[in-house]
Amino acid sequence: MPDPVVRDLELADGTTTPIVIGVGAFEHGADRIGAWLAGRTVFVLSSPTVRGLWGHATTALTRDAARVVELEVVDGEAAKTVATAETLWREMLAQGGKRDSRLLTLGGGSVGDLGGWVAGCFLRGIEYVQLPTTLLAQVDASVGGKTGVDLPGGKNTVGLFHHPAAVLADTRVLTTLSRDLRRAGLVEVVKMAYLLDPALLTRVENDLEALLEGDVERLATVVDGAVAAKCSVVVSDPREGDRRRLLNFGHTLGHAIEAALGYSEMQHGDAVGWGLLFALRLAERRGLGTEVADRLRRLLDRFDLPPLPELDPDRLIALMAGDKKAREDGLVWVLPRDLGVGEMVSGIGNDEVRTELIAFLNDPFASV
Amino acid sequence: MPDPVVRDLELADGTTTPIVIGVGAFEHGADRIGAWLAGRTVFVLSSPTVRGLWGHATTALTRDAARVVELEVVDGEAAKTVATAETLWREMLAQGGKRDSRLLTLGGGSVGDLGGWVAGCFLRGIEYVQLPTTLLAQVDASVGGKTGVDLPGGKNTVGLFHHPAAVLADTRVLTTLSRDLRRAGLVEVVKMAYLLDPALLTRVENDLEALLEGDVERLATVVDGAVAAKCSVVVSDPREGDRRRLLNFGHTLGHAIEAALGYSEMQHGDAVGWGLLFALRLAERRGLGTEVADRLRRLLDRFDLPPLPELDPDRLIALMAGDKKAREDGLVWVLPRDLGVGEMVSGIGNDEVRTELIAFLNDPFASV
Repeated sequence: MPDPVVRDLELADGTTTPIVIGVGAFEHGADRIGAWLAGRTVFVLSSPTVRGLWGHATTALTRDAARVVELEVVDGEAAKTVATAETLWREMLAQGGKRDSRLLTLGGGSVGDLGGWVAGCFLRGIEYVQLPTTLLAQVDASVGGKTGVDLPGGKNTVGLFHHPAAVLADTRVLTTLSRDLRRAGLVEVVKMAYLLDPALLTRVENDLEALLEGDVERLATVVDGAVAAKCSVVVSDPREGDRRRLLNFGHTLGHAIEAALGYSEMQHGDAVGWGLLFALRLAERRGLGTEVADRLRRLLDRFDLPPLPELDPDRLIALMAGDKKAREDGLVWVLPRDLGVGEMVSGIGNDEVRTELIAFLNDPFASV
Repeated sequence: MPDPVVRDLELADGTTTPIVIGVGAFEHGADRIGAWLAGRTVFVLSSPTVRGLWGHATTALTRDAARVVELEVVDGEAAKTVATAETLWREMLAQGGKRDSRLLTLGGGSVGDLGGWVAGCFLRGIEYVQLPTTLLAQVDASVGGKTGVDLPGGKNTVGLFHHPAAVLADTRVLTTLSRDLRRAGLVEVVKMAYLLDPALLTRVENDLEALLEGDVERLATVVDGAVAAKCSVVVSDPREGDRRRLLNFGHTLGHAIEAALGYSEMQHGDAVGWGLLFALRLAERRGLGTEVADRLRRLLDRFDLPPLPELDPDRLIALMAGDKKAREDGLVWVLPRDLGVGEMVSGIGNDEVRTELIAFLNDPFASV
């Protein structure tokens, strides 16, 4: 088996976040972060399911810690609340957590987002390392320093930028994911590939079945490609101005669909898949070639996304208006202008969005 | 009347925080931050007492805002909870707050600390400006970017570094403070003066009565001196390594006293006053001259600090061990080595601390 790859995400403050990717990333990481946690109090945040499957991986990592304190939250998005964070802070304080304590997050995007925020605010900030255990978290959530929790009014509406000291993305953990969760993660890969790396798009097209089936080597390759693409925009735009916002392709409607469904019925990645298809419509209206649009439609068609339940277009529009990325002057859409070329488009009127949305909900895969 | 002074706090990222100090800082600030909030949704966080007295000052400041949303929290430390922050986040979201919205904090250290954290985490961070209305907040809490709330296990145990875009410290607001609150703020001035600026110490000694009585011009001078001293250490050490920790002089025991009293019976500044006196004992044991120590004792004696209630030394020691500034290897004390010279001292054993604490509680103003 090939060694894990290490991508160094260069941060604005001159530091770097090493992202270790591939089969054996945990073992590779043990050497890398051993000194970082030696002699420290180390908190390990996870959820019951993930700890049961992969908890043993952190045991090896933390062998030089002064002591290890396990923190547990429920699986999935439900863990991302302010109240859960407060419970964790109280426990960390009661357990003698100090400014030089460390936190490991072992889990999917929810555990990573929550844990990053908890680390970023505990005693005004302690260092942490992410061990993402879903494909979504490996390619997207764990890279770039975004952390946060949800409010009833919106997802990730409370949080901060707090970069992990390292990310260990071991693709072996993806074998215990369901095929559905691998698919949801692949949507984010496709999102990045379409706007940032057409060669990666071709790879996903060619290897789709093996990727969905959990081939750890092929998964390592696309995780590496997606992380490289993401790093390139994060580096050029650490605080999310225009360039980084390319990553929001598909997310404007995607977030609204999730919100409309209460964040439980549909995986984030699947909702983004539908969001990508809708963005294609708006993009075609602005000149995106039908052949280029259809290429993404054909690929997403092979994903077998879970069907969209009946949704009220006006409710979706209202939810999009409340998106945290909205500005006083309205929504900014991320749309492809061509394969490998994205742009920010503002000023699309509600009437147009509503018309397209109705057509889209009626036949999501149709060209305009 | 002299114009307000503007101190520019230079931050590690190359930006600066202008700190406008003196009589008329609000009017001066209106020109300075007018463009910053023009066309924005502006949240104004305050407490009922402060809004009643000085709310009109923000009305002039926000004249160019798109709209102003008032947020209210209870007076004092009781506002600094995670739950209060969540209530504010929900309200800000419900009111249509966006990433380009602004927050003004009008109040004492509690409103500033809470508001800074709320701004720092809302939608992963919005910009804010502090309008500190207590002497403590003007000389200390509003400068340096520390924000946060309390947990039952400790003060300021959840928060982050989030620098305000500006600070407007108008000393006219100090006229509506009680003499007791001016005294509590002066303790922090004395803390900085003793380790960082002996000339400022002399000024407080000479003008003490006028300062306690609320002379806005003399207060402007000492606020400026204290802010300058604080800026000098914050600039050299933005994330609180050794140099910035000089500001914790008196705070190790001070925080423990506050915690033992449930953060309600005694003002932070007054507790720090007692903490300074205790630190003098430890410093004398390490060679601080008695005359130098007595100079600070004489000044603090003139402060008429509220008496220390009966406190259990072992409880105080336990509380100090839980201080967020503690490391795995124990407490680090900030002690004066001479007038204008502070040092970090670690490795002071619990036995010594206990012995000195018992002697101190018995006669706080006694030399060793």
